[in-house]
Amino acid sequence: GWLVDGLKLLQRMNLELPSVGDYDIKVQMLAAPINPSDINMVQGTYAILPDLPAIGGNEGVGRVLDVGSRVSSVKAGDLVIPSNTGLGTWATEAVGNESAFVKLPIDVPLLCAATLAVNPCTAYRMLYDFESLKPGDSVIQNGANSAVGQAVIQIAHAMGLKTINVIRDRPDLQKLTDRLQSMGANYVVTEEALRKPEMKEIFKEVPRPRLALNCVGGKSTVEVLRQLQHGGTIVTYGGMARQPITVPMVRKCIYIFLFGFPWLSTRPSKLLKMITELCDLIRAGKLTAPACTEVPLQDYRVALEAATKPFIGTKQILIM
Amino acid sequence: GWLVDGLKLLQRMNLELPSVGDYDIKVQMLAAPINPSDINMVQGTYAILPDLPAIGGNEGVGRVLDVGSRVSSVKAGDLVIPSNTGLGTWATEAVGNESAFVKLPIDVPLLCAATLAVNPCTAYRMLYDFESLKPGDSVIQNGANSAVGQAVIQIAHAMGLKTINVIRDRPDLQKLTDRLQSMGANYVVTEEALRKPEMKEIFKEVPRPRLALNCVGGKSTVEVLRQLQHGGTIVTYGGMARQPITVPMVRKCIYIFLFGFPWLSTRPSKLLKMITELCDLIRAGKLTAPACTEVPLQDYRVALEAATKPFIGTKQILIM
Repeated sequence: GWLVDGLKLLQRMNLELPSVGDYDIKVQMLAAPINPSDINMVQGTYAILPDLPAIGGNEGVGRVLDVGSRVSSVKAGDLVIPSNTGLGTWATEAVGNESAFVKLPIDVPLLCAATLAVNPCTAYRMLYDFESLKPGDSVIQNGANSAVGQAVIQIAHAMGLKTINVIRDRPDLQKLTDRLQSMGANYVVTEEALRKPEMKEIFKEVPRPRLALNCVGGKSTVEVLRQLQHGGTIVTYGGMARQPITVPMVRKCIYIFLFGFPWLSTRPSKLLKMITELCDLIRAGKLTAPACTEVPLQDYRVALEAATKPFIGTKQILIM
Repeated sequence: GWLVDGLKLLQRMNLELPSVGDYDIKVQMLAAPINPSDINMVQGTYAILPDLPAIGGNEGVGRVLDVGSRVSSVKAGDLVIPSNTGLGTWATEAVGNESAFVKLPIDVPLLCAATLAVNPCTAYRMLYDFESLKPGDSVIQNGANSAVGQAVIQIAHAMGLKTINVIRDRPDLQKLTDRLQSMGANYVVTEEALRKPEMKEIFKEVPRPRLALNCVGGKSTVEVLRQLQHGGTIVTYGGMARQPITVPMVRKCIYIFLFGFPWLSTRPSKLLKMITELCDLIRAGKLTAPACTEVPLQDYRVALEAATKPFIGTKQILIM
């Protein structure tokens, strides 16, 4: 085959929507982010390849325009997000089965709703599903200033957990530290500090973590593992691209790799509980959207270019 | 360093026991199995190396002989098992902190008690901790005739789950199939059958598994993954030796690697619930010990030799 840059092949097109069947709903898309996994999927480096041609975008928020005669979970005017990947959210409208969408409370701010499905849900599931944590327990994470990392800080804070947040050293370290602490981070340490004996001071104040969240790999993973409580759990969630992060299995503990967005398979009752709790946090101002740049849909090439630049710092959100 | 066979260095010795402190208990060991992980530990190929010299054996059962003045959880005469690895159970007596032991009901048969900690507890934790399974849900496992596999069949059966059990083809296939089915296995299939379209017949009767248990690796893992429900969980528990089983991450799901015996870190309340439930199953005849060969402690060399032979079929149990 030919190696082509899938991003260059993306085009804005007028497509005919499928008709709205008895169990379908039609949605007017309002906003949809450009996530790194979307880029990987377009470039063909993501683990899952869609059938082509396909509409890009997996996350976003829309308003219900029309529902089929047998649809009971939503009505016209409701706010919904996709319940699975593959919908194609970089579009003005979408039609899908009722089960392909989850209803949100109507007053969730647009950017929070558009970015709820991937990062906050991943953070929530990692904090709830693998260890039964109690208030006062601690959690350690590297890549703490990523979008998932920031959601972890805020959700963990609301759960009464103590977070130890590892970031790379940088010129504006104090500024980032302040920002993460204002979100509820209890400790912010650099990768370098993590290797120093001073870490022990932290564990005079909080217990060693039962849970470690890892999106960096390599040396950073080893250092994070060294802090973990005996028999704890390390969850690696960076392995979205085809090559999962290499994790050295150097400690007796539970190693978990999330591959794709497995929270999507969560039982409906647990899904509803998660969405409700996350939206409650958003409305209470305890869970904020990451820094976003809003770009009109027609300027998608500008947004894509910005989204593929490393260290851009803000998430590109297409506004329809 | 010199490469030596640690097994040849094992010796029977008279050692002085530590004195029984206020928080300690003294135990007369009754029976202790020789597990593959014990052999790996002695040979130095296990992930965790004990400080040497050390007493071999990590699992076993004993009777309390004496307790320190501050011990409240057990009294003389109680049946106990170690709550962690590293006790050194290939011994006539042992002394350790109260927290190093867990009390069992007095009427648990000796061989069941001696083999409870590693295999049934691993099976139990894998069935309970990573997916919330409900009666009627299915679980798939390879290496289904291993000691853990047999415990999985019996515990899952008691939970109302349906098990799909993968084994290697062999001359006495029907005999093994019958034996696993008598334990409660719903389906027994060979590795070869797993690759055939006939597997679909099973999923006309039971839902696709949300949980897969893997102790084989390689091709077998891929085939087991192919049966898994979208977004399910695969738990790999074979990676006790230094080199964990290679698991190809080919599907969107949760990949879990148990490394060591992580159930040991379970919170006390969950540990008590697990031990109680497993002992209830044992007393109801629903959870049996694997086939055992009892060997007097002084004949440990015979037992070690048998334990290192592949496909011996029975577990060697040292009787003190």
